[in-house]
Amino acid sequence: MKPIIYRIVLAGLGNVGSNLLTILYREKKSLQKRYGVNFCVVGVSELGGSAMDTNGLDLQLLLETLQSGKAVSELPQIGRPDMEAIDLIKQAQPDILLEATPVNLEHGQPGLDNVKIALKNGVHAVLANKGPIALAYNEFYLMSDLGAGWGINYDINFTSIYNLSFLPKLRFSACVAGSLPSINMGWRDLAGYHIQKMEAVFNGTTQYILRAMEKGRNYENALLDTQHRGIAEADPTLDVDGLDSAAKLVIVANAVLGQKTTLADIYIEGIRSLDNTVVKQALANKQRIVLICLAEYIDNQYQLSVKPTWLPINHPLSQITPDEMAIAYYTQDLERLFTASSEPGPEPAAAAMLRDMLDIIRSDMENIR
Amino acid sequence: MKPIIYRIVLAGLGNVGSNLLTILYREKKSLQKRYGVNFCVVGVSELGGSAMDTNGLDLQLLLETLQSGKAVSELPQIGRPDMEAIDLIKQAQPDILLEATPVNLEHGQPGLDNVKIALKNGVHAVLANKGPIALAYNEFYLMSDLGAGWGINYDINFTSIYNLSFLPKLRFSACVAGSLPSINMGWRDLAGYHIQKMEAVFNGTTQYILRAMEKGRNYENALLDTQHRGIAEADPTLDVDGLDSAAKLVIVANAVLGQKTTLADIYIEGIRSLDNTVVKQALANKQRIVLICLAEYIDNQYQLSVKPTWLPINHPLSQITPDEMAIAYYTQDLERLFTASSEPGPEPAAAAMLRDMLDIIRSDMENIR
Repeated sequence: MKPIIYRIVLAGLGNVGSNLLTILYREKKSLQKRYGVNFCVVGVSELGGSAMDTNGLDLQLLLETLQSGKAVSELPQIGRPDMEAIDLIKQAQPDILLEATPVNLEHGQPGLDNVKIALKNGVHAVLANKGPIALAYNEFYLMSDLGAGWGINYDINFTSIYNLSFLPKLRFSACVAGSLPSINMGWRDLAGYHIQKMEAVFNGTTQYILRAMEKGRNYENALLDTQHRGIAEADPTLDVDGLDSAAKLVIVANAVLGQKTTLADIYIEGIRSLDNTVVKQALANKQRIVLICLAEYIDNQYQLSVKPTWLPINHPLSQITPDEMAIAYYTQDLERLFTASSEPGPEPAAAAMLRDMLDIIRSDMENIR
Repeated sequence: MKPIIYRIVLAGLGNVGSNLLTILYREKKSLQKRYGVNFCVVGVSELGGSAMDTNGLDLQLLLETLQSGKAVSELPQIGRPDMEAIDLIKQAQPDILLEATPVNLEHGQPGLDNVKIALKNGVHAVLANKGPIALAYNEFYLMSDLGAGWGINYDINFTSIYNLSFLPKLRFSACVAGSLPSINMGWRDLAGYHIQKMEAVFNGTTQYILRAMEKGRNYENALLDTQHRGIAEADPTLDVDGLDSAAKLVIVANAVLGQKTTLADIYIEGIRSLDNTVVKQALANKQRIVLICLAEYIDNQYQLSVKPTWLPINHPLSQITPDEMAIAYYTQDLERLFTASSEPGPEPAAAAMLRDMLDIIRSDMENIR
């Protein structure tokens, strides 16, 4: 069989975006052999401009340019100085938009507009940037396949609003703790179950800092470490004040728990005011302080919070390594489903975008048959 | 929206099958509200006969009959003494066959023929019985959607063999450790990854026995416990001699690792010859003996084994509870993805069949749009 060609635009060339390019370059042959697919990157954009070639960009050239710290928008022929992602999407007409621009939890830009433009033009979207989906789940629900069998429990009759034979697909598994399949497990592995409780460690930076503090390091030094390793958000206050965790909880609440939720609905407490003494004191009591995202079904709705929580040392969420993020779902017929994944750097989030791309293609192929 | 009606035949009314009926009865309204689906059970079969009603069987009556220990095939009107599942499938013409007959790892019957008849007639199949899929993966691959984008790495051009616009769907997530999403994670969460190693605890009976032996109980008593709780196979030699684990490893090897595998390809060692002394001795050395299913990629192929293995006490597969089964995948871009699920009885396996049914329906709906 000839490989199917998927045309890709990647918005955002930071840690996750550039790692994804590396994977697509390295795995080109393997993806063709294993999945029968050929990804043709027709455009990439970063702050300040884009590069575009409707015949496919040279990934090796792009990676070398990024490594040397130069702007891809200044490359000869393919460089498009000042061209923003929204224009790139319109001009390059990809099959899939990959959204990996920096997170903004106030207005969601530029990612929010990128995703909207894509969906409005029938372009599938895969997000690593959690801002747009945390802020605009309801809107996306109506513009994508989320409303058609994936989104759960929302009482919206989407067919009356959009009578499309083709709905663009939206995937965002990388948005809720990188490679940890938080969303996928809720959607598929727990389909039909009643989720009574969800507790999770969704933020790598705070997890790393708290563990380092147990060993006597101070807060500031531990935070610097996470920035050097590329796991902290560009703005680390999102991590340490619990907002990054809360945004992920918003996504789980909307997409998996079926409860319309915004950031304002979540009680949020960060780790900034914790000092080493308290962290060590917990350990002396065979407990551990962990920044827990919690959803508990009480009186017919989920109570949602993010806060530093004392857990017994033998609780699965205490036992994960400093590099891991983890989630535990508790349901009626399945007491507990626990998953942990190691996220020592940005590679797992990039690989999670690839799995979402393959999921979209599989689903497309089921349509074609 | 009116609910979509799916007509169901259930073969096998043992622990898993009867629990599934309970869930379908209990969740009728909820499934309609959350997923827009109405399951209409048009036939059930057990050893010795069936019950059938093309307008839908009364689940409460079936459950009461099972509870009282009577045969459903002897119920007035709907009872079909001597009617086997293959005839029931042909006559009742369901949309989905649920296969939960007892496991046989030699000839796979009666499940093997049930699944074949279903697929040949364009009927989707959801399996809890691992026999058929462990013995006939290659055959099913060509008869179902496994060959069309789900099955990985097999170099078969299915379109030249089956030029069907409709391929029946085959799901078997309950076959590899009940609710533990062993197969689903490999298919979807690790799509695009290179799996370098997989290690798992796939057998609840041996897990329970080994933990009980650590506490000084003897092998025979611990085994009896598992039989009373409905987690041991009907024939417990399959559990304790490692064959049940090996069958699950065969399924993972074929379906996830993409390596054509039969039981004969696996090195198998059970726990029957272990005595308390050794188990306790491990614990004294801060280790634990666990029956591990292992797949390791060495020299371009997976080496496969099932054997009692000494693991450090802080290894995630050592830390699971006696009721849990667990799997760890190790890949290039994602160091480790670990999952554990509690399987104290047959309910989780039954619920896993339901999630597969919903997965098929979602996929059907994508075709219809």
